Amino acid sequence: MTTSNWHLSENRFFDPDPAQRRIAGELYAGVTGLPIVSPHGHVDPRLLADETATFGTPADLFIIPDHYVFRMLYSQGVPLEALGVPRVDGGAVESDHRKIWQLFAEHYHLFRGTPSGAWLDHELAEVFGIRQKLTGVNAQAIYDEIAARLATPAFRPRALFKRFNIEVLATTDAADDPLAHHQAMRASGWDGRVVPTFRPDTVINLLAPGWTASMDALSRSSGVEIRSYATLIRALEDQRAYFKRMGATATDHAAVTAFTARLNAAEAEAIFQRALQGQASAEDARRFTGHMLIEMARMSIDDGLVMQLHVGSIRGHNALVRERFGADKGCDIPTSSEFTHNLRPLLEAFGNDPRLTLILFTLDETTYARELAPLAGHYPALRLGPPWWFYDSPNGMRRYFDQVIETAGLYNTAGFNDDTRAFCSIPARHDVWRRVGCDWLAGLVVRGQIDEADAAEMAHDLAYGLAKRAYRL
Amino acid sequence: MTTSNWHLSENRFFDPDPAQRRIAGELYAGVTGLPIVSPHGHVDPRLLADETATFGTPADLFIIPDHYVFRMLYSQGVPLEALGVPRVDGGAVESDHRKIWQLFAEHYHLFRGTPSGAWLDHELAEVFGIRQKLTGVNAQAIYDEIAARLATPAFRPRALFKRFNIEVLATTDAADDPLAHHQAMRASGWDGRVVPTFRPDTVINLLAPGWTASMDALSRSSGVEIRSYATLIRALEDQRAYFKRMGATATDHAAVTAFTARLNAAEAEAIFQRALQGQASAEDARRFTGHMLIEMARMSIDDGLVMQLHVGSIRGHNALVRERFGADKGCDIPTSSEFTHNLRPLLEAFGNDPRLTLILFTLDETTYARELAPLAGHYPALRLGPPWWFYDSPNGMRRYFDQVIETAGLYNTAGFNDDTRAFCSIPARHDVWRRVGCDWLAGLVVRGQIDEADAAEMAHDLAYGLAKRAYRL
Amino acid sequence: MTTSNWHLSENRFFDPDPAQRRIAGELYAGVTGLPIVSPHGHVDPRLLADETATFGTPADLFIIPDHYVFRMLYSQGVPLEALGVPRVDGGAVESDHRKIWQLFAEHYHLFRGTPSGAWLDHELAEVFGIRQKLTGVNAQAIYDEIAARLATPAFRPRALFKRFNIEVLATTDAADDPLAHHQAMRASGWDGRVVPTFRPDTVINLLAPGWTASMDALSRSSGVEIRSYATLIRALEDQRAYFKRMGATATDHAAVTAFTARLNAAEAEAIFQRALQGQASAEDARRFTGHMLIEMARMSIDDGLVMQLHVGSIRGHNALVRERFGADKGCDIPTSSEFTHNLRPLLEAFGNDPRLTLILFTLDETTYARELAPLAGHYPALRLGPPWWFYDSPNGMRRYFDQVIETAGLYNTAGFNDDTRAFCSIPARHDVWRRVGCDWLAGLVVRGQIDEADAAEMAHDLAYGLAKRAYRL
Repeated sequence: MTTSNWHLSENRFFDPDPAQRRIAGELYAGVTGLPIVSPHGHVDPRLLADETATFGTPADLFIIPDHYVFRMLYSQGVPLEALGVPRVDGGAVESDHRKIWQLFAEHYHLFRGTPSGAWLDHELAEVFGIRQKLTGVNAQAIYDEIAARLATPAFRPRALFKRFNIEVLATTDAADDPLAHHQAMRASGWDGRVVPTFRPDTVINLLAPGWTASMDALSRSSGVEIRSYATLIRALEDQRAYFKRMGATATDHAAVTAFTARLNAAEAEAIFQRALQGQASAEDARRFTGHMLIEMARMSIDDGLVMQLHVGSIRGHNALVRERFGADKGCDIPTSSEFTHNLRPLLEAFGNDPRLTLILFTLDETTYARELAPLAGHYPALRLGPPWWFYDSPNGMRRYFDQVIETAGLYNTAGFNDDTRAFCSIPARHDVWRRVGCDWLAGLVVRGQIDEADAAEMAHDLAYGLAKRAYRL
Repeated sequence: MTTSNWHLSENRFFDPDPAQRRIAGELYAGVTGLPIVSPHGHVDPRLLADETATFGTPADLFIIPDHYVFRMLYSQGVPLEALGVPRVDGGAVESDHRKIWQLFAEHYHLFRGTPSGAWLDHELAEVFGIRQKLTGVNAQAIYDEIAARLATPAFRPRALFKRFNIEVLATTDAADDPLAHHQAMRASGWDGRVVPTFRPDTVINLLAPGWTASMDALSRSSGVEIRSYATLIRALEDQRAYFKRMGATATDHAAVTAFTARLNAAEAEAIFQRALQGQASAEDARRFTGHMLIEMARMSIDDGLVMQLHVGSIRGHNALVRERFGADKGCDIPTSSEFTHNLRPLLEAFGNDPRLTLILFTLDETTYARELAPLAGHYPALRLGPPWWFYDSPNGMRRYFDQVIETAGLYNTAGFNDDTRAFCSIPARHDVWRRVGCDWLAGLVVRGQIDEADAAEMAHDLAYGLAKRAYRL
Repeated sequence: MTTSNWHLSENRFFDPDPAQRRIAGELYAGVTGLPIVSPHGHVDPRLLADETATFGTPADLFIIPDHYVFRMLYSQGVPLEALGVPRVDGGAVESDHRKIWQLFAEHYHLFRGTPSGAWLDHELAEVFGIRQKLTGVNAQAIYDEIAARLATPAFRPRALFKRFNIEVLATTDAADDPLAHHQAMRASGWDGRVVPTFRPDTVINLLAPGWTASMDALSRSSGVEIRSYATLIRALEDQRAYFKRMGATATDHAAVTAFTARLNAAEAEAIFQRALQGQASAEDARRFTGHMLIEMARMSIDDGLVMQLHVGSIRGHNALVRERFGADKGCDIPTSSEFTHNLRPLLEAFGNDPRLTLILFTLDETTYARELAPLAGHYPALRLGPPWWFYDSPNGMRRYFDQVIETAGLYNTAGFNDDTRAFCSIPARHDVWRRVGCDWLAGLVVRGQIDEADAAEMAHDLAYGLAKRAYRL
């Protein structure tokens, strides 16, 4: 058939100029075989806890859990129910996974020129060996091919973990999580390195849905009965220590803004008591989060866990989708961010301490050159995380390199995060980063700004070394 | 003479890389013959209402009414009076159009590297067949050439409408406009498709100069005597229906911000009554506009008119120019904009309804990737308009493609608007868009991100299909 | 040795495309020999006041006074004390300049891909003739080479001033400065043109550290005893006249924001009296600065001094570094800026007066296309300064050209400022500007947007003419 020679271009994401492309290709050849270090992501540890776990159907793997994918079809009028996305109320949604796949294939053109399209193509071609461009016509045949492969042991998560050459994978785990799947992984004797990450958002955000339940769970997990601000701090410290014993090297924090400000002990206790009584205000919550971020930096200096801060997402912007389908359904929308003023209290407290590594992520690219690069190019405690979420894309990476490195230098950045819950997209995402990074370095070489020897070292650091060192892995 | 071989480069706006240029050229060859769909602009319908209408002198055509042009000379110290721009007070301005043209030609270097310069060159070379680069030396000879052509029937507006291959042209018309010129066009039996667009800004903005007169005019046009908020709504609905019968497929709304918020009926009525008594405050006006934008979305769902929203211009920033020369005199200055929070009330009400098409325009490019693309990549009702005003330029288009498409995809955009009152610049503006668009697609092809078949489809959509579908033309 | 052929690429900063590179090279060949016009910078006039002045050791020249350099090492955990940066309290810092140089060399990789790295490479290769890439291994040998050259008369500041082909150099001098070094330069009969610039920030900012001392010094320098707002104005006017007699053609103003607003005479006097009594509030200071910027524009119209405004830096963001090492120690961090609303009062007063030239600088690139280019593309009094500070870099320049010129045109910009206190980096900085500028123009040529004749004129203006005219030099 006419599309049966479909394959990924071997020079994809490289500049067309022959000189730059040659150098990009050489740099890429030097890093493509490096193991994957995945220091931040959302893979479900359950997949790797049990050696017999599988990914389910092609729709289970590619569509139903992936908000990057279904939000694009939704934006063109396809109901989420038709894509099998489960409703909070248990209401009926499409259960015929072939129909879901067909709908997806018929809308595949929507992904032209998008990073989701590039990852999907990579997964189809490289992970599943598909040799046809997906269309409505061949959708069922390709479904069959993928389903057949998924049924084999070579396509179980642990097998792919090895095939993907993953050196270490960090999951993201609620602070109150007893880490049962990580325990099971360890108990199983499997030699894959999968480590948890301590994420206390639902404990720290006094207005988070389920805050009380989260607090109770943390009490249970940590063995510290939380009745006061002081006991909360102790519980968090103890639970961090538990995560660290389980392999964690980092914490992760999400906040709408980067606001930080110290509370004195009495203020912190008063706010916490109001929260326990269900009477915390929005301003209480904002100030408590601002204070706790400084506390988390203090704890990181004590226990050595690297601190990550993700700022700027308005979660669940679409009330209808949020209420019908729950969180993480493709309707989180960024807003403008500010770091220069907001982070100053935290930096005054700990920014000069090289024992702290605080890795910053933004959804507001205007902060790259204006705020983040100057901050990271000065404060010893700061590193900049890679382009995040909507910016984990070829253009997003180019803008990041162009706007960050001149001021911060490469060595105040933290390599790549895939940040994905789609396990099979991990190699695709790292491959885009490696290719775009090598092409960016090749651009510096052909413009006489660095030499090829420097470029080769920088390519290695981008692909592997920076993430490993920044996350102390 | 030495400059007599002056012509436009046939590869203009294409990347110099030979591989990318070849593909860009092939894509462009496939779309350059497509008809022009012009779904939003400010051409005076009077020009097309009468088959004998003409453009006047070269200065009438190129300089006096075009604030893109005269503001650049003004910025370098040339008085607007010397360019023949009429004063509000009827004071003396230059009336010798040859002198105006001479001044323009002597400052023509100011337009180097600007989109205005590219459009002017295109009009001179392609529309008027000029074969010399305009300078102070040849200014009068070129004036003669243009004047001679303008005197011929082939250079009347209706003739150029056909020559330009315009399939449909939308004008922008005040809500209270009786559409006499559109009536005359219809009555004349001319087969050019020119449709009005319903723009109720002066009615909705309670503090607009001439608001009371606008309200009276709307009462007359709609036949609904407006004495209350309820009758205002009815008058608007009726007048929308009239515009629709006259061929309109869209409305257009300009606002300083994208603020939206529902008022209850009593609040809306109270504010409206204050306005009728000339006592509306700035806050009243802001809240009323925010409410009426939601009402307009509701009406769009009812009557199927596509809704456009243009946000972010501070009109008449320069008081001296505004007072002496009036509105639209090149001193409208953008300010930063916000959509994520501001549009949320409107989107909560109607954002999930695919019957609504709301097309957004911004003068703040930081909102492209941060807010607009994520919003349009999720909400079924949203589409993104093309780069607007200062960003209707090669670099503006490149930034738009690079920042919007990865997240929103191509199919959540709305093709091109020329947005011009300069009729003869329409082909130039669409040509820049088509060239830059094809070059951007060629860049994706040479980087292996899309294949040539996809690129050809996308080029067609960019040049023609997206605008036609988004505006329901 | 293997690195002994190290040299700068002759095509550095040029696009790799052969056609664009050829044109860029031709344009560059046409401007590389032009004299340097340096209309804004921070070179210490003491260096040029005495023909026997020297630069000291290589560490004195390259590291200890240059916050661009030492902040990068600090960001990676190197204490400023180890780099010989003097402490405010006179506490011990490293005094062995060979050790400081060694530390610098061992961290030289941090500068890969940064403008600081490019300038340092240029200085080493072109000014000092070093033929090895600096590393920890060859650090001492290179130290010896540089030290030997610095000991010769050919490497004294005045000799390099001639070798660098500097036509005019502007220093930046406090309003209260008696300009003794400039007097000495004149008295010495040296024919180098070095002019002062009037910078009254410490007088205008009522909360500046040392404001009272500054006021006393201005009284002494101007001979006007400052006891009131009226006498302050007179003192400033008189001192501007003195600077002008000493060769100044410009003033310079730094502010956190571009806020401007008129005070009436009584308000101005009341605030000033509170300041004299040490009781000015932050709001007093903000309003007074906003008022004085308008006053400075008025004085500029009277005396013809060009007015510069630098906006957006939070000085001394890191309290620890600020308190231990003082001002200008690499911890000034930008914040977002706004011009459209803030500058409006000043522009209403004087924006239409072509006798005023107000040159604007921003640390917030989002204002380039959104606010600054539209403002400069309209108001006769405005010009845009070149990319400033963190944006004085190849990518910063490209973004500036791409975002500013389409709307403002080239002729509303003001050429280049090196803005440096590192005298030996002046040729490097101008060379980057000239190269990137020629490459940008070549990009317009190969895209058919301008022809080569226009490009050659524009290259000359970028390299030389724009700065000379904008600063009336």
